[in-house]
Amino acid sequence: MNKQTTLVLDHRQIVQTIERVGIDRFMSVLIDRLEAAFAEFSDGEYDVPVRSGFHYHKPVTGLVEWMPLHHKQRAVFLKAVGYHPTNPVDHNLPTVVATFKQFDPVTGRLIALADGNLLTAMRTGAASAVATRHLAPRRRISLGLVGCGAQAVTQFHAISQVTEIDHVRVFDIELQNAHSLIDRVAPLNSARCQIEVTSLEQLLKASDVICTATSVEAGEGPVISAPSLKTDVHINAIGSDLPGKTELPVSLLRDSFVCPDFPLQARVEGECQQLTEDQIGPALVELVASPDAFAAAKTRRSVFDSTGFALEDFVAMQLITDYASDFGVGTHLEIEGQVSDPFNPYEDLKRSAFINTIE
Amino acid sequence: MNKQTTLVLDHRQIVQTIERVGIDRFMSVLIDRLEAAFAEFSDGEYDVPVRSGFHYHKPVTGLVEWMPLHHKQRAVFLKAVGYHPTNPVDHNLPTVVATFKQFDPVTGRLIALADGNLLTAMRTGAASAVATRHLAPRRRISLGLVGCGAQAVTQFHAISQVTEIDHVRVFDIELQNAHSLIDRVAPLNSARCQIEVTSLEQLLKASDVICTATSVEAGEGPVISAPSLKTDVHINAIGSDLPGKTELPVSLLRDSFVCPDFPLQARVEGECQQLTEDQIGPALVELVASPDAFAAAKTRRSVFDSTGFALEDFVAMQLITDYASDFGVGTHLEIEGQVSDPFNPYEDLKRSAFINTIE
Repeated sequence: MNKQTTLVLDHRQIVQTIERVGIDRFMSVLIDRLEAAFAEFSDGEYDVPVRSGFHYHKPVTGLVEWMPLHHKQRAVFLKAVGYHPTNPVDHNLPTVVATFKQFDPVTGRLIALADGNLLTAMRTGAASAVATRHLAPRRRISLGLVGCGAQAVTQFHAISQVTEIDHVRVFDIELQNAHSLIDRVAPLNSARCQIEVTSLEQLLKASDVICTATSVEAGEGPVISAPSLKTDVHINAIGSDLPGKTELPVSLLRDSFVCPDFPLQARVEGECQQLTEDQIGPALVELVASPDAFAAAKTRRSVFDSTGFALEDFVAMQLITDYASDFGVGTHLEIEGQVSDPFNPYEDLKRSAFINTIE
Repeated sequence: MNKQTTLVLDHRQIVQTIERVGIDRFMSVLIDRLEAAFAEFSDGEYDVPVRSGFHYHKPVTGLVEWMPLHHKQRAVFLKAVGYHPTNPVDHNLPTVVATFKQFDPVTGRLIALADGNLLTAMRTGAASAVATRHLAPRRRISLGLVGCGAQAVTQFHAISQVTEIDHVRVFDIELQNAHSLIDRVAPLNSARCQIEVTSLEQLLKASDVICTATSVEAGEGPVISAPSLKTDVHINAIGSDLPGKTELPVSLLRDSFVCPDFPLQARVEGECQQLTEDQIGPALVELVASPDAFAAAKTRRSVFDSTGFALEDFVAMQLITDYASDFGVGTHLEIEGQVSDPFNPYEDLKRSAFINTIE
């Protein structure tokens, strides 16, 4: 990246880049890079504070949060992310919107800015795929998708890269969303597995792997019940990402091997809100670093408690900028510009600006 | 601002906008808007958390921090700011670099992004001007500038908008910086007051208002001594903005009316690090809201402890976007872009992206 410019990757350029790579290949490389970064994380190469932000109920219910990351001596990264459930219907926008920023730790300059909407959805899927690779009871699975919004698409796609899916059951409290999901995932279904809208009960009973990705309101969970689940089911719990917002029954969590993406944050915003410290298993980075130590978890119920982790976004940003750079895609803007004299903020203003008679 | 685009104001466009307004007028409107925002702040219209960030010593000593602000029901604002003292010499960049981002609290979208380098320097000056208006012992003053980097230029400029300066004494441990400051402020000196490089002792003895804006290292302060100061001197302490970094002797602080920009943060990063709670006076927002209650402070030594406050940046961003909008300046980018289906992250990818044979 040029020393004095900011690389901007907008939505269109990100789409173009992924089109050239191919959606399956991009997702599978993302999953592999994510798993490698998790292993590196456990070596102390990263500093990732818990995110914080503004949560509000006016003018609508929503939040804007910032998720920082420091890759030591290499990069400072900041994701800004919004969650506004009224977006799809009221504004034709995704519920989750995000932008990624990367800074040079030598100068503090903004060196890259990328649309984070598509990448956030993809990295959320990729994180579930890493967890599923380590916790699914078998390689050939029946998949259940509870909640059929944008995240369900990338959950299906990512998990299809690490398992063989022979059957998909989908459920949403809005029946039309469930039906439209079948159309949305059709182009991703190269294995031509059966995909059908079912009752929630059928889905819970038949699935080896379940992804919950709903916009249930805080205090209104759980969205599934435990009794009919398989004894070795693996659940990727995606929707819980706000204080009070949970999707799984506490009885299920207590009975399961629970693996959070980010334990400190999961205790505040994830399913782990419902648990005490001793009821929570290893973080995903620990699971990835020592898979053999936790191999037995595949034979019992397991939950990946996904609240969102800046490391996932950082890896997605590195991947898209690597490919974009190979392809010559991206716009270089002089946002911070060149300065003639770093000791004189006014050096670049023409002399007429100093004559106090204008406007 | 358009619903689906992001307004980008780069360095060049900000310079153009300020040129059209005139530098004096822009600064004086900024000072007035800042004072009005301070008054509104005390009515609870804003939520401004203490900034946080990454502080490091490798690959260089520096930091990147984020400063969030919520203007309730109206805007979410986030400033990213870097402080790297090696920038001017090693990279021809300002020590302080920054970018401003504004988000729509209805959708979470990034609606504006602006270079923050020049605006940060100007708002830091403007904040000192507000404090000086309320705390300087008299309207016609002798000014002393300790530390002659970029901030000294805007300190001089802003204070010249709210006082009559009849004499300026400048000092820097790098003599060449002191001499070059005279050239840098010359175009701003419409009143043609005398500006000279002096010894630190002369400066301290003769000044009614002093601004300290140095890059002294943490633990290496103070940069001035107390005994020779006037009994009613007002000091704008700008440089203290890191744990351990302070510019003023504790004896002076204990003997002065101390007004922080942001008390919680000043206790961690400002001169107020050296004080106990009961030794700290009202915040600048309180001073502005009730000037009569604190009128006596003009007759004694006073210190404005400026660590940097996101409200100042937010006001500067509003001002530049207002003027830029009037002038039709700015670039509208589709960073987040339009999506065809908010429930399908992949909707905009062409069909060939789904055939897994590419690259």
